[in-house]
Amino acid sequence: MPQTIIGIMGPGQGATPTDLHNAQRLGAAIARASWVLLTGGRPVGVMAAALRGAKAAGGLTVGILPGRDQQFVDPNVDIAICTDLGNGRNNVNVLSSNTVVACGMGLGTASEVALALKNGKRVILLGDRPAQDFFSGLAGELVVAVASVEEAIAQLHQWHGA
Amino acid sequence: MPQTIIGIMGPGQGATPTDLHNAQRLGAAIARASWVLLTGGRPVGVMAAALRGAKAAGGLTVGILPGRDQQFVDPNVDIAICTDLGNGRNNVNVLSSNTVVACGMGLGTASEVALALKNGKRVILLGDRPAQDFFSGLAGELVVAVASVEEAIAQLHQWHGA
Amino acid sequence: MPQTIIGIMGPGQGATPTDLHNAQRLGAAIARASWVLLTGGRPVGVMAAALRGAKAAGGLTVGILPGRDQQFVDPNVDIAICTDLGNGRNNVNVLSSNTVVACGMGLGTASEVALALKNGKRVILLGDRPAQDFFSGLAGELVVAVASVEEAIAQLHQWHGA
Amino acid sequence: MPQTIIGIMGPGQGATPTDLHNAQRLGAAIARASWVLLTGGRPVGVMAAALRGAKAAGGLTVGILPGRDQQFVDPNVDIAICTDLGNGRNNVNVLSSNTVVACGMGLGTASEVALALKNGKRVILLGDRPAQDFFSGLAGELVVAVASVEEAIAQLHQWHGA
Repeated sequence: MPQTIIGIMGPGQGATPTDLHNAQRLGAAIARASWVLLTGGRPVGVMAAALRGAKAAGGLTVGILPGRDQQFVDPNVDIAICTDLGNGRNNVNVLSSNTVVACGMGLGTASEVALALKNGKRVILLGDRPAQDFFSGLAGELVVAVASVEEAIAQLHQWHGA
Repeated sequence: MPQTIIGIMGPGQGATPTDLHNAQRLGAAIARASWVLLTGGRPVGVMAAALRGAKAAGGLTVGILPGRDQQFVDPNVDIAICTDLGNGRNNVNVLSSNTVVACGMGLGTASEVALALKNGKRVILLGDRPAQDFFSGLAGELVVAVASVEEAIAQLHQWHGA
Repeated sequence: MPQTIIGIMGPGQGATPTDLHNAQRLGAAIARASWVLLTGGRPVGVMAAALRGAKAAGGLTVGILPGRDQQFVDPNVDIAICTDLGNGRNNVNVLSSNTVVACGMGLGTASEVALALKNGKRVILLGDRPAQDFFSGLAGELVVAVASVEEAIAQLHQWHGA
Repeated sequence: MPQTIIGIMGPGQGATPTDLHNAQRLGAAIARASWVLLTGGRPVGVMAAALRGAKAAGGLTVGILPGRDQQFVDPNVDIAICTDLGNGRNNVNVLSSNTVVACGMGLGTASEVALALKNGKRVILLGDRPAQDFFSGLAGELVVAVASVEEAIAQLHQWHGA
């Protein structure tokens, strides 16, 4: 049966040190729960930090790449999906994730949160207050705003067991 | 040479009467300027209102449909593009528009604004203050917040002549 | 109501002089019938020849581009759709065409013929005997093999009137 | 580092008993070589047979689904990628595979072979003579025609080691 996939979304450029620290811890927690980590697959920012955390903890990782080949893949991606969709791959990121966690915020992340919610998926928003307010106003209870990695992980376990 | 295309984005469901009124006037102004109107092509909400305004003013209209055929196309669409991309077609909407105008706000619209800005395109946000604040915080001067249809139209003429 | 769109597919590189001559005549015939011509939109091969024929005859043209902007658009495209889908845009080409005509054959064209037939659309194959044999074997009566531009045009009029 | 992914493409409907037998054996061989098996992910035809063979041999499997959720996923898929691209997902299938093996032939398979070759990827065509002739004529040495599962597996080992 398909394994549970948790998607970590966040800025490639412009991630804060806190975003990166949170992403690495989230990646590790996902691996320890035996879930699969999915990210946008590039070797920058929140994607790279989450992948590093997951692989260090022995997890399995998927990267959904915007390009047509593996030229810009993060070395911690196990399964590289080459879409040639550009930013259109953001819809694949969220559809393929059982739950999406946004760790930090940027334009690509905002598009992923919006697409996830538009597709009826629950999204955990970690930390970014403007995004929490904006998306809660649009999507109500589908948005779960949390203030810490611990809360995000607790929420994932509540929904996905293990 | 390719004609100038202006994309009007806005909620299908949940559009306010003001959103619909604004969309119809924007569609008409686009047609009168001899630009092509692009929308998501479905017969609901802001899409339908903008298309109605443009056709009543004698314009040419393009609808980028999420489905694989014309089953749910608005009758005021002249050129129906069937993508079979679901919400992933939102990226095509914004890439194909020389400028995007958001008229009202919803989850699909938020994804389009985010994708347009992520792709480096200027976006005119009409009226919705939370969206204006949120996206201005993420994208700075690429976001042009306006309070009225007149301002939006003036901005379009400043950028695209005619 | 959406206008009738006829898609002309054929090789960008490697088109023969006969392919180019046929494509230009098909483009002109489509324009004279007041149908919209759709191609892959790039300024090479069969795409360029069909677009040139249609514009010289006063028609309206659509180009479905593989890239994210209009950098490589043919100057005879009126409506440029920027997909950022790479070769994945071939599915959009055929879904958006009421009927697809293949004029010459190449790998991209073969993918378009296969995708059109897979989606249940009729395809007119002009001239290329190996392709006519191969696809007729897979799709039976959905494939209409013709030997001349005149036959292709007669078939289009039989299906789409005018 | 990304693992080697071998894509098995073939008809969902209309697969012959030989196609299914070959697909199951190919799936098993891919798993025994510690490669990842990629298919279109639906519980029918060649996809299902290859996935069954790979899982019975203890392999890891990826399914690239045409839909927006896991409603029609084969139970032997480990990693389900939900694309909402319809047949447009065929381009993702081939771009994500280091090598594509076509096992039997149909319209979807033909589109995948054409897209793989168009993207410059080598394709192993097992058994179907009309397809071998047609695609060899278009793509020359990128097409490797084989007559047996053993030859296909030997070719994979020559290219991908193990």
